[in-house]
Amino acid sequence: MGRWETGAGERLRVAALDLFSKNGFEGVTVAEIAAAAGLTERTFFRHYSDKREVLFDGQDRLEGLFLQAVAESRAVRPMELVTEALSRSAEFFGEDRRPWSRSRQTVIDANPALLERESLKMNSLAAALASGIEARGVLAVAATLAADSGISAFRMAFSQWIVEGEERSFEQIQAAVLDELRTVVGLG
Amino acid sequence: MGRWETGAGERLRVAALDLFSKNGFEGVTVAEIAAAAGLTERTFFRHYSDKREVLFDGQDRLEGLFLQAVAESRAVRPMELVTEALSRSAEFFGEDRRPWSRSRQTVIDANPALLERESLKMNSLAAALASGIEARGVLAVAATLAADSGISAFRMAFSQWIVEGEERSFEQIQAAVLDELRTVVGLG
Repeated sequence: MGRWETGAGERLRVAALDLFSKNGFEGVTVAEIAAAAGLTERTFFRHYSDKREVLFDGQDRLEGLFLQAVAESRAVRPMELVTEALSRSAEFFGEDRRPWSRSRQTVIDANPALLERESLKMNSLAAALASGIEARGVLAVAATLAADSGISAFRMAFSQWIVEGEERSFEQIQAAVLDELRTVVGLG
Repeated sequence: MGRWETGAGERLRVAALDLFSKNGFEGVTVAEIAAAAGLTERTFFRHYSDKREVLFDGQDRLEGLFLQAVAESRAVRPMELVTEALSRSAEFFGEDRRPWSRSRQTVIDANPALLERESLKMNSLAAALASGIEARGVLAVAATLAADSGISAFRMAFSQWIVEGEERSFEQIQAAVLDELRTVVGLG
């Protein structure tokens, strides 16, 4: 599966976000999403377990990329492992995805339950990254501190990347935020 | 109000945790907690909005201590402000509180809904700390990176502090974790 899947999954995703943006997340049914994409509800449920999943399934793929990077890296120090993991976001957040990510965030920010879910997803992303780093022989405390700080930097980079008018790539922004992290925390 | 309030609030807290530990969080009613403390339900609701709040009201007081420390500090750098905020945990997590905190965590760890609530509470504690630091003239990105890293260190210190047989004070453990954070992230 490609980083930005084509076919039915993408049509459903685009149709869903379009409807969420117009009518609010709560005001849209799976039947409406499927109809707008010219597909059946059954096809929808082959791709997503529910309508929330349209907005969040990317995070599972991102977690997979991060963990793969950590497992395959030759680095030893926890923050090097984190930096290599986060570098995989650059391929995930390509230019073609930026407008979609921006609209998605607007939908999420308008809905407290979606914000909670996003917050919990970010915590589990950090926990998974910490476990991956620990599996590379790093002690638990160091692995968790590195993973939490890294996911904080990732979140800051993402917020900046979707600002209207921002033209730097995800990679450029994230590198700048990681520099800032090292400075801010290292000088503490 | 003292850091560890006496009287009805404390009696209710002790009775609640005792019942939660025996029967599980879901298996206990407010009526039972009040009866075990020799008080009325009405008195319970004067102290806590619901039975979950018995476990979480401390976090609001802790947030108040952190924000006060940031507002009153003469420090300028974000991690210095974070360190001064976190140093207030030492008075909050005194020796008298350790057994209670340990049992409380056992109750929370056994209940996925409580774990979610705790996770969200930690995120809002980090967000509040970041806002407090920003209000001191630090740019948003640096404030958030420092607050998130600091709360990660706080969580690690807390986990260690409640380990059975751990004898170091919260202050000692947290200082060690903050050193580790500076090393791990600064060398990244």
